[in-house]
Amino acid sequence: MKTPWEHRYAQRTQRMSSSAIREILKLTQIPGLISFAGGLPAPEVFPVNEIQAACDVVLSEVGAQALQYYPTEGYQPLREMIVRHSARYGLNIGVENVLITTGSQQALDLLGKVFINRGDRILVESPTYLGALQAWNAYGPEYVAVPFDDNGMQVDTLEDALRMGPKFIYVLPNFQNPTGVTLSLERRKALIELADRYGVPLVEDDPYGQLRYEGEHIPPVVVLDGQYRNSVGETYHGNVIYLSTFSKTLAPGLRLAWVTAPAEVIRKLVQAKQGADLHTSTFNQMIAFEVAKGGFLNEHIKTIREIYGERRQVMLDAMESYFPPGVKWTHPLGGMFLWVTLPNGMDATELLPKAVEKMVAFVPGGPFHANGGGDNTMRLNFSNAQPEQIREGIYRLGQVLNDVLAQ
Amino acid sequence: MKTPWEHRYAQRTQRMSSSAIREILKLTQIPGLISFAGGLPAPEVFPVNEIQAACDVVLSEVGAQALQYYPTEGYQPLREMIVRHSARYGLNIGVENVLITTGSQQALDLLGKVFINRGDRILVESPTYLGALQAWNAYGPEYVAVPFDDNGMQVDTLEDALRMGPKFIYVLPNFQNPTGVTLSLERRKALIELADRYGVPLVEDDPYGQLRYEGEHIPPVVVLDGQYRNSVGETYHGNVIYLSTFSKTLAPGLRLAWVTAPAEVIRKLVQAKQGADLHTSTFNQMIAFEVAKGGFLNEHIKTIREIYGERRQVMLDAMESYFPPGVKWTHPLGGMFLWVTLPNGMDATELLPKAVEKMVAFVPGGPFHANGGGDNTMRLNFSNAQPEQIREGIYRLGQVLNDVLAQ
Repeated sequence: MKTPWEHRYAQRTQRMSSSAIREILKLTQIPGLISFAGGLPAPEVFPVNEIQAACDVVLSEVGAQALQYYPTEGYQPLREMIVRHSARYGLNIGVENVLITTGSQQALDLLGKVFINRGDRILVESPTYLGALQAWNAYGPEYVAVPFDDNGMQVDTLEDALRMGPKFIYVLPNFQNPTGVTLSLERRKALIELADRYGVPLVEDDPYGQLRYEGEHIPPVVVLDGQYRNSVGETYHGNVIYLSTFSKTLAPGLRLAWVTAPAEVIRKLVQAKQGADLHTSTFNQMIAFEVAKGGFLNEHIKTIREIYGERRQVMLDAMESYFPPGVKWTHPLGGMFLWVTLPNGMDATELLPKAVEKMVAFVPGGPFHANGGGDNTMRLNFSNAQPEQIREGIYRLGQVLNDVLAQ
Repeated sequence: MKTPWEHRYAQRTQRMSSSAIREILKLTQIPGLISFAGGLPAPEVFPVNEIQAACDVVLSEVGAQALQYYPTEGYQPLREMIVRHSARYGLNIGVENVLITTGSQQALDLLGKVFINRGDRILVESPTYLGALQAWNAYGPEYVAVPFDDNGMQVDTLEDALRMGPKFIYVLPNFQNPTGVTLSLERRKALIELADRYGVPLVEDDPYGQLRYEGEHIPPVVVLDGQYRNSVGETYHGNVIYLSTFSKTLAPGLRLAWVTAPAEVIRKLVQAKQGADLHTSTFNQMIAFEVAKGGFLNEHIKTIREIYGERRQVMLDAMESYFPPGVKWTHPLGGMFLWVTLPNGMDATELLPKAVEKMVAFVPGGPFHANGGGDNTMRLNFSNAQPEQIREGIYRLGQVLNDVLAQ
């Protein structure tokens, strides 16, 4: 049926992806289907009781304030807590450097709105986080895709791209979504120096930084950038905008994340956020503060690490057992995802309906590539399904792969 | 301090307003200052106990689901409830016509993202809702400001503007923010016919529709449009996109609102919302559903009407007593605001510091005018302050006005 709106869409809607994959993934609601497709935390780890207790405290002590409008910048005690939390990680900022957002997805959208003119170049890893591409496509950038290997962005290939005058570099250094790969310390340092030399700033997206299951913590790029400035005798430079979230450590359903940026950038983001949703739910911000203020999350994260670490290992072991030769995969040190590369010429999108038929699902890797490619890749999530489901799901996926390779 | 971000802002940031008024209004935090400046509901009417009970039910019965990611379209039972609620108001839609948004502010932003190309003309009332201008400015439209009187948009002046081929008409028919004025039934009908004749669709923003304190309910434009289609032998046409919210009937701090639109438009808005914040807080949507499902809000709205109706009357009576001759104001039949017009040549922005000195605040009306003007107008909120504060605040404001007029 025709409506008068149909010929009125803005040009930018043509750049918003309506995804065929999304339609297939609706099938993942089928009972009995084992889905590695989503990016969901395990529901078992949500601290339901602590959140319930926090709701009681917030509503009985400051109920009227919790349900009222609140300034765009975010709940002041929560921002102050993030300042203290950041200091423990070596990032010395003030409350004027923190904006609470309605999930990191909103932070990405606001960054697009504030920084991206149509045709601007943005340097992204290849593959990179699909949600960033979805947020930014509306603003019409061109992406420069930087090659990627088991140590993350191939920083040594960056100079040509930096000479093209990109607006910023977007990097997910820890257990990247989609690959699970970690940017090595050496590359982080090289990235900071190159970015400085070419005068190009960075956006660091770090939703999984605290979810490490193996190896030593590597400081975020924003912290290393501060150390680099000190070493060359500079003070705070704000070259890195840092994004993090409560979605993986507390609960995604609350839609709570934050941006760390120079105060002047925060002011622009606040203006953009005012137009976008006025402010993030006051109630949810107060709940997060109440749950987190006594240090509960630090303990809670240990539980999450244990559970996800086991699931990661179960998935890796099952792949070793059931996947045919010629199929490769990453070995993430943390996070929620790993990345499978099929033999050349195999198409993961064509594989998906076959997998769903065998009651297992994944996300094809193509859409994570800003400029195309990656048809023979797929992303698997290991945080959401139970260990026995993971083993069974990988077994089924192995069968599908064997069937196709045998044809 | 210079950061590398400063010369990187997108051109559109120049169209985002950083407001001097906003800075002055920060002064409204001063203890003892009586503020008519905000757009805040009365905190006394928030159903804190009901929300607390709903949190308990949601977290103990479906806690894991409430804290998990959820599809962008919104919580299915809440969408279905909105469908039933709409039917009671004469609007026959399906669940595919409803999108839950993070407050109506987000709905405005998504409409801008999906429909507005730079340079598009948007027809707005003059004055109109400031938040719509803030949301849309980022997309670079030109506004065509339609004259306005005590019966709302002067529909008889609309034809010239309609010939200019605007993208859509934006109208707030009930107790408009900022003026409190209601668009008469005759004008609603004339607007629908004119919009149809020129093939221009409408966006109807109706946050206060249920908050009427006097007179008979007038059906929303979206409902009247349906009746008009029937009368000329057409079926559902979707010419009106309708916005409403839980912010005034439940609580703004939850950030919950909805859009009603043709299914095809909803699909585009869903794509835009995916990039903007993935989805609205699952937990908050479930709370709203739990509070509202037994019909509680229908009863609750009666309480709100009683309280706000009294406050409106107290403000009108006090203005009658304390405001000098030559000052005019609207007599709203509902909503949360009224609108004051000062004698020509008086500037409300210059008045504001003087008012704040006397410990009373308002919002100057200028910024509500898309294309300038209205310097001698101001918006007063009557929902937030207690009756005795309202009387005292209007007394103080009357003193300020008398002082200035005596000079």
